[in-house]
Amino acid sequence: MVDKTEKFKYAPLMVFQIILLVLYCVFTTYGGADDATVRGYEDTHVMIFIGFGFLMTFLKKYCYSALGFNWLLAAMVIQWALLCQNFFHMEDMTIRITKKVLLEADIMSATVLITFGALLGLASGPQLLFIAIVETALGCTNLYLCEAVFKISDIGGSIGIHTFGAYFGLGVSSALRLKKVEPQQGMQKLDGPSYVTDTTAMIGSIFLWIYWPSFNSGLSQSDAEYQRAVINTYLSLASATVTAFIVSSIVNHQAGKFDMVHIQNSTLAGGVGVGAVANFFISPGAAIGIGMGAGVLSVCGYRFLTPAMEKIGIQDTCGVNNLHGMPGIYSGLLSVLFAAFITSDTYGTELPHIFEAMGEGRTAEVQALMQLAALGTTIVLALAVGFITGIIAKLPIFSPLKETERYDDEINWELP
Amino acid sequence: MVDKTEKFKYAPLMVFQIILLVLYCVFTTYGGADDATVRGYEDTHVMIFIGFGFLMTFLKKYCYSALGFNWLLAAMVIQWALLCQNFFHMEDMTIRITKKVLLEADIMSATVLITFGALLGLASGPQLLFIAIVETALGCTNLYLCEAVFKISDIGGSIGIHTFGAYFGLGVSSALRLKKVEPQQGMQKLDGPSYVTDTTAMIGSIFLWIYWPSFNSGLSQSDAEYQRAVINTYLSLASATVTAFIVSSIVNHQAGKFDMVHIQNSTLAGGVGVGAVANFFISPGAAIGIGMGAGVLSVCGYRFLTPAMEKIGIQDTCGVNNLHGMPGIYSGLLSVLFAAFITSDTYGTELPHIFEAMGEGRTAEVQALMQLAALGTTIVLALAVGFITGIIAKLPIFSPLKETERYDDEINWELP
Amino acid sequence: MVDKTEKFKYAPLMVFQIILLVLYCVFTTYGGADDATVRGYEDTHVMIFIGFGFLMTFLKKYCYSALGFNWLLAAMVIQWALLCQNFFHMEDMTIRITKKVLLEADIMSATVLITFGALLGLASGPQLLFIAIVETALGCTNLYLCEAVFKISDIGGSIGIHTFGAYFGLGVSSALRLKKVEPQQGMQKLDGPSYVTDTTAMIGSIFLWIYWPSFNSGLSQSDAEYQRAVINTYLSLASATVTAFIVSSIVNHQAGKFDMVHIQNSTLAGGVGVGAVANFFISPGAAIGIGMGAGVLSVCGYRFLTPAMEKIGIQDTCGVNNLHGMPGIYSGLLSVLFAAFITSDTYGTELPHIFEAMGEGRTAEVQALMQLAALGTTIVLALAVGFITGIIAKLPIFSPLKETERYDDEINWELP
Repeated sequence: MVDKTEKFKYAPLMVFQIILLVLYCVFTTYGGADDATVRGYEDTHVMIFIGFGFLMTFLKKYCYSALGFNWLLAAMVIQWALLCQNFFHMEDMTIRITKKVLLEADIMSATVLITFGALLGLASGPQLLFIAIVETALGCTNLYLCEAVFKISDIGGSIGIHTFGAYFGLGVSSALRLKKVEPQQGMQKLDGPSYVTDTTAMIGSIFLWIYWPSFNSGLSQSDAEYQRAVINTYLSLASATVTAFIVSSIVNHQAGKFDMVHIQNSTLAGGVGVGAVANFFISPGAAIGIGMGAGVLSVCGYRFLTPAMEKIGIQDTCGVNNLHGMPGIYSGLLSVLFAAFITSDTYGTELPHIFEAMGEGRTAEVQALMQLAALGTTIVLALAVGFITGIIAKLPIFSPLKETERYDDEINWELP
Repeated sequence: MVDKTEKFKYAPLMVFQIILLVLYCVFTTYGGADDATVRGYEDTHVMIFIGFGFLMTFLKKYCYSALGFNWLLAAMVIQWALLCQNFFHMEDMTIRITKKVLLEADIMSATVLITFGALLGLASGPQLLFIAIVETALGCTNLYLCEAVFKISDIGGSIGIHTFGAYFGLGVSSALRLKKVEPQQGMQKLDGPSYVTDTTAMIGSIFLWIYWPSFNSGLSQSDAEYQRAVINTYLSLASATVTAFIVSSIVNHQAGKFDMVHIQNSTLAGGVGVGAVANFFISPGAAIGIGMGAGVLSVCGYRFLTPAMEKIGIQDTCGVNNLHGMPGIYSGLLSVLFAAFITSDTYGTELPHIFEAMGEGRTAEVQALMQLAALGTTIVLALAVGFITGIIAKLPIFSPLKETERYDDEINWELP
Repeated sequence: MVDKTEKFKYAPLMVFQIILLVLYCVFTTYGGADDATVRGYEDTHVMIFIGFGFLMTFLKKYCYSALGFNWLLAAMVIQWALLCQNFFHMEDMTIRITKKVLLEADIMSATVLITFGALLGLASGPQLLFIAIVETALGCTNLYLCEAVFKISDIGGSIGIHTFGAYFGLGVSSALRLKKVEPQQGMQKLDGPSYVTDTTAMIGSIFLWIYWPSFNSGLSQSDAEYQRAVINTYLSLASATVTAFIVSSIVNHQAGKFDMVHIQNSTLAGGVGVGAVANFFISPGAAIGIGMGAGVLSVCGYRFLTPAMEKIGIQDTCGVNNLHGMPGIYSGLLSVLFAAFITSDTYGTELPHIFEAMGEGRTAEVQALMQLAALGTTIVLALAVGFITGIIAKLPIFSPLKETERYDDEINWELP
């Protein structure tokens, strides 16, 4: 006998997809072609679907779910984020879709995928979908606050995307209070990698790394700003990578050897660390220094902080706090620092594009304060609403996982 | 003693490659640089070689052959298709090669790879090469009919590429009459995936998904048309993906679980379904609706139609009928529908670029009829010439596989 | 007790990274935005990190090291090469970084990765890093000789990158004199592929193939030159691929079957073979012929030459002599041949861009001789300095591997 509840487990998602259909029919149309040549769209697309997807395949028996939920969540969130993001900018009750609008929706989906990384293997499909829908709406609201109220500069989304996504995830995780369990006798330990899955995870990691300069420069408004964002991101990633390898070999349990977790993740911290200041005139040397700092911060986070957090009941499967959270805060603080030294001599005609409010008379000091305020607001808001979302997600209606169902494709897939 | 027949098994291909060499020396030269900045070329290239190649690695012991034959067939077909496609457009007996011409050859190679998907693991190397050479010539002829005689609009090739490739493949398969065989006792069942091969297949699937907007917009002629094709394809893919997951969990044998075959394939049906109308003014809402329909159609095809076809002796290893065939027809019918409502008010100066014949006075009704005529012609022609090609491919000269040689890399490769 | 020597094994690299930081702070700034739209940067990036990285994952127990060292070496070399390459072009003691400068650094890192291919599984981390730092400085010097002294044309780097990298690697390998050892009883033979690792290696191989046209055209200076380089490379790759399959099936031990080593590598020889002449007016037919020659040369090298070299104590794990070395020489010789027939009638206004010295009065004959001189100098220099570097790399300070540590991730990684 077929279990009707199981059979229609995802029926509420069907309802949501139909709501999206109706909203698009009523509120959207094609925008003008000025943004048709926006840069970085395809590259960001690769990061979202291949990059995040494969990075999360490292668990030995959760590859299908990692790739599948990554894809499902992103495909849903892109449709939903496009509406949420443009809700505040409608003219005549109409959203005009351009390629740039699609790019912004892609970028927003990263927020949800970062949160997914914290919960990888710990949440059910319905839980993840509920969390994603709520987070998208709240993440877009936070982004609106950053852009329209604090008027900050954050081209790579280190504050609005990475920090928000990571702390929303940790908020949810804190609410779920998923204690780490030791596998019972005779059971396979599933919360670790196999040789093959660690290799496939590198597909994701390296593609994220390759296209990060495109991600951090996608929303730039001139060739000069674009090129600067690419150079800074590229140098920061390169130095973070070298640093992550070195620090990994130093702090590792087996002295002199590398830890694949560090290599897969902390190499990328250079991209997050430089994100909020990628289009600033920070100088190439500073970009290298920023990357080195991000590499140290991230590896040490994985080695020392994550185990400590697990002990107090906050699980973070992919260690998003070390890749997105702390490097995001680090980048936000760097943006405070560098904003304080902005001069129109340095930025020339680019000033009003990069720091909109300074074009209207805001001083560098105020800009720096606003960067700080936005960072603080983002952290507090993400943790708070993440926690509340997590509390709600524990309701039986979202079919939370039993301990024995964790990190296991078996519950989501018909396996070969 | 070395078997001379085996040793020179691919000698006829060498002869064909030398013929290609001579034809290029005699008939080709470099074209002007106007098309040097054509969009979508690199992205389409990834779809052809990584996308199709890895999508077909899902069988547990056919990864080498899937990747190898995909590569060999595409590399040969690209050279051959370039000549076939431009044969009708020669000036002074010379083909002028541009980057756009390369893109068109890449696109045509998809036709052959779709057919390969139907026959995956069922045909020998010589059979596949023979089929590819014949199909390329006939596919280019059909495309010429669509473009120059029916003068239809089919920017994403849903009619000329997807429908043709799928039904040519089913035509061949019908002729080969390869009954499904149950493995004998003690033998491994090879016509299914393993955990690892299903994961590598996702590399192909996701890259196809990511670059499909580039595929459907590559041959657009203005920024506005390009952007519209990207938006429509992107939205259709996103909604098809969400829908495919939902429907998969409903129709699956194990209620509430996803089937990897559906996820790898039906997620992409949104790209095929919107292909023929991707550059039309269909509205973003309609694009989402089209994707939802394609997702339902494709998953149900995999679940109910493919098993039924197998029973009557038509094998389709990758289920190309569900990913390319039926969604191609669906897209063709949508193009009939939307063509009937074309007005110059809506399309403005884009009208003569998108609907060439309407720029010369054809009415919307006639355009709609021509779209229908091209679709019907494509299906009938593909099935008929595919069937005949299949009959010829059964000759011993093409070394058809024995039943025990199916789905097995062993016969094509020196394995580790 | 922690072994301090092991713990700080990579401390010298930290010192080098800090030196890089200081050099960047002192000598670099952002360049003008004219080169912000340079083509091929992202594609080349994929080749370096995904292409080379995954191509080298074919060994059954060296995937982590292949991917890890590839990433570490490239991330370090990119930073270092950028300085070395621009040292000769500084204005006011300042290097102005543009996106084109980043692209050139990426291209240079290929040299080191080719050398890594020869030594794959045979050298320790410290050895590889030492070799990379030396090779980058010497490779940049050789490139400077080619460009500023011999003033040759070599758009795809077949002489300056591929030939140099391959023979530097063989020079190092000759110095290391690593005799092939038969595994002792009870030990696993590690210097070969597994079914899975051969499949992941195809990710690298196919991405290299896909983006090779972008690599060979990245430094072109006009749309026409760019398009010609793309067409020639694409056709050469396609014909080399078909030819490699055919020749593989003929020369293989098991008649009529393909050898995965040939398919992964010799398919790419078409890109190297056409590299030095990719932007020449060679005609599309000649491009196809060049590719066919490269395919034959490369497969025969793998089948007959590599085993012979191993017997005299020169190991070449990836067979870089067959993929980069001999096809590089072949391309260099082709550039001598085609240069002898250059006329201003054919090249028109492109002449001074492609052959700088001919714009200043050099004849075609002298250009041809200079191409030959540069090729010869590159081979001799690479072998000589490679050999010396190899001798130094044998010092105990660089922790050379014991025979039992070869091809084994265990010594570099904490494995699952």
